[in-house]
Amino acid sequence: MPVNLSAPASGSLLPIRGIQLGVAEAHVRKANRKDLMVMVLPEGATVAGVFTQNRFCAAPVTLCREFLAAGTPIRALVVNTGNANAGTGEDGLMRARRVCEALAFELQCEPEEILPFSTGVIMEALPVDRIFLNLPTCIETLAEDAWALAAETIMTTDIVPKGLSRQVTIDGKTVTVTGIAKGSGMIHPNMATMLGYIATDAAVPQPLLQRMLGEIANVSFNRVTVDGDTSTNDSFILIAAGTAGVTVDSETAPGYAALYGALREVAVFLAQALARDGEGATKFVTIEVEGGRDAAECLKVGKAIAHSPLIKTALFASDPNLGRLLAAIGNAGIADLDVNGVRLWLGPVLVAENGGRHPDYAEADAAAVMKKAEITIRVDLGRGSAHETLWTCDFSYDYVKINAEYRS
Amino acid sequence: MPVNLSAPASGSLLPIRGIQLGVAEAHVRKANRKDLMVMVLPEGATVAGVFTQNRFCAAPVTLCREFLAAGTPIRALVVNTGNANAGTGEDGLMRARRVCEALAFELQCEPEEILPFSTGVIMEALPVDRIFLNLPTCIETLAEDAWALAAETIMTTDIVPKGLSRQVTIDGKTVTVTGIAKGSGMIHPNMATMLGYIATDAAVPQPLLQRMLGEIANVSFNRVTVDGDTSTNDSFILIAAGTAGVTVDSETAPGYAALYGALREVAVFLAQALARDGEGATKFVTIEVEGGRDAAECLKVGKAIAHSPLIKTALFASDPNLGRLLAAIGNAGIADLDVNGVRLWLGPVLVAENGGRHPDYAEADAAAVMKKAEITIRVDLGRGSAHETLWTCDFSYDYVKINAEYRS
Repeated sequence: MPVNLSAPASGSLLPIRGIQLGVAEAHVRKANRKDLMVMVLPEGATVAGVFTQNRFCAAPVTLCREFLAAGTPIRALVVNTGNANAGTGEDGLMRARRVCEALAFELQCEPEEILPFSTGVIMEALPVDRIFLNLPTCIETLAEDAWALAAETIMTTDIVPKGLSRQVTIDGKTVTVTGIAKGSGMIHPNMATMLGYIATDAAVPQPLLQRMLGEIANVSFNRVTVDGDTSTNDSFILIAAGTAGVTVDSETAPGYAALYGALREVAVFLAQALARDGEGATKFVTIEVEGGRDAAECLKVGKAIAHSPLIKTALFASDPNLGRLLAAIGNAGIADLDVNGVRLWLGPVLVAENGGRHPDYAEADAAAVMKKAEITIRVDLGRGSAHETLWTCDFSYDYVKINAEYRS
Repeated sequence: MPVNLSAPASGSLLPIRGIQLGVAEAHVRKANRKDLMVMVLPEGATVAGVFTQNRFCAAPVTLCREFLAAGTPIRALVVNTGNANAGTGEDGLMRARRVCEALAFELQCEPEEILPFSTGVIMEALPVDRIFLNLPTCIETLAEDAWALAAETIMTTDIVPKGLSRQVTIDGKTVTVTGIAKGSGMIHPNMATMLGYIATDAAVPQPLLQRMLGEIANVSFNRVTVDGDTSTNDSFILIAAGTAGVTVDSETAPGYAALYGALREVAVFLAQALARDGEGATKFVTIEVEGGRDAAECLKVGKAIAHSPLIKTALFASDPNLGRLLAAIGNAGIADLDVNGVRLWLGPVLVAENGGRHPDYAEADAAAVMKKAEITIRVDLGRGSAHETLWTCDFSYDYVKINAEYRS
């Protein structure tokens, strides 16, 4: 079960004026579940996106990049689960274009004004016929207060829907930020099979929105990892609807800090939610690496810990296995690391220094930390002032079960 | 259970004249199991070693490096299981030195003539008293035909002992090569908690022996990975006893190719045995990457596949999950990889090309390959002529179980 994470409380996901969401059961892969979502944007909305770095990126990612680069205003987004339309070559691109065309026909706009997203099994042909047949249902059900329904619709192996709203006051006016995401397995820095959509009713010029998105992705979704794999379909989209009567048009604008803070808070919540609901997760783990010469080496150490199956199984077992932690640090690829300068904490407990256990180390103290559902592992590399934070989860029997049986 | 691997048949591990092995139950960590092994070398033997790249290397590794670098002849090796004497700081170094002193006293030699090895739990103080008390038993039981007993003694979570002998004829004389190894979890290119000892009765000058060892490690132990973690204690030792009346003193010597071939064959067998007996392994997987611009990028792709928990769980499930394979290839860090030039085979079946499934792909064919206990995944990157081979195993429920419960 997800670690300290539940579905958004009823009514807690606030509408963003002008943005409407509709869903349908299209039977893309499984019957009797919502698997198709359309989000229609108001005229004048700006949209920014960041996408997977995987060289095998999915067809819809290719189209999103193409359409955003062209600078055409975006009129709507369409998301299906059950099928990722990835590893599908030219045929996959054609199918993704056909979905855009079908929705453009419904909305009486151009296909290039539609951003498509897919998540699910890879290398299977997208069943466009079932998507076509059910787009009208999405259109019919369009509503501004359907964010919770949308969060549920985009789930794959997620156990709970993920969403959060925040409000800030800018120029005496209320500005709302609402975000939803899906994740579960294959979550990794530089993203993974995650889809994230955050919208605000403030107006933000597209270039500024893109810069904000890049910065926010780097401290949220790019800092979470479940198993080190990066998916073909990761997409994180930021939308400024421009319907609140508030414009933030530069980093020095009076409302910038407040808006940025709200967007960041929602993004960090959603990113952490991915790890809390990682496949089979029983622990939510924060890894803080400080005292590095630069951010890159802090991240190396953080990832070495976050990706180690030996550490992840020890976390599952609530075992304060210091040796595996030190081995991962030693193994992170910092060639001139002086291990005698490294200090390691589990929660508040200083467990290792000078190349070995802290003299006062008592396993009971460390075991008490490890028994908790939320664990912080802190490393001081003792060689600089850079620091980075990553979030991850443990590896349980259920991780193997979910991933061994995913396609069956 | 190990994949197509059983303990060496009785009598199949051939003695190396002049090398004697003795074992004892020292109760380093658990009672009633052999956990201490001494190997005494004949005068004139040469010894070469390669060791873990982990910055947190264990105390015995530090001493081995120091003693080998000093060039003193090596008189004996001492190996304990149950405790790795790693992450133990200055105290650990002192304890490792004391073990060398104790054995040197028994053998009437200098402590610097003893190479110490430890494997087992990390960050616990080595119980030197129990080792001291049981070294005499090792000495009393010294025998030339005790390689099988030694292979059994050095095991930790290994299910079967690992050993192989080969004989070649050089200058009309029989030259024997015998090797043993232990591994199981934490096996990784650049080594892991693996100990490997290969000996021959040929005479080889130390500098040449060291070069041979480096080359052989690179095509054997450095090509096997279970979970991507690298241990603090990895050691691979090559011994030339010089008792066969045959000397191989250069790469151009008449017997070089035969000796190198036999050493390499034993090393590759032992390296593959580590993956066959990987923790919880149910599949033995060979990953062949060809068509790369250089070896480095072939290895990147091979490791991306070998380390992906999503692929390893799919292997466990016998699921031909092509998408996870393509995603791992796309994710290997080759920035300019043209995915349309990549081809992928499962066993003999060409399953993917041109960025998607092969047109003739039939899942039944791929499923038949995946059902086998030994699976070959072959990738052609289509951009050069470099190729590399790696060996790994799958991730099963038992991997989680073994590693979650290791210390309990």
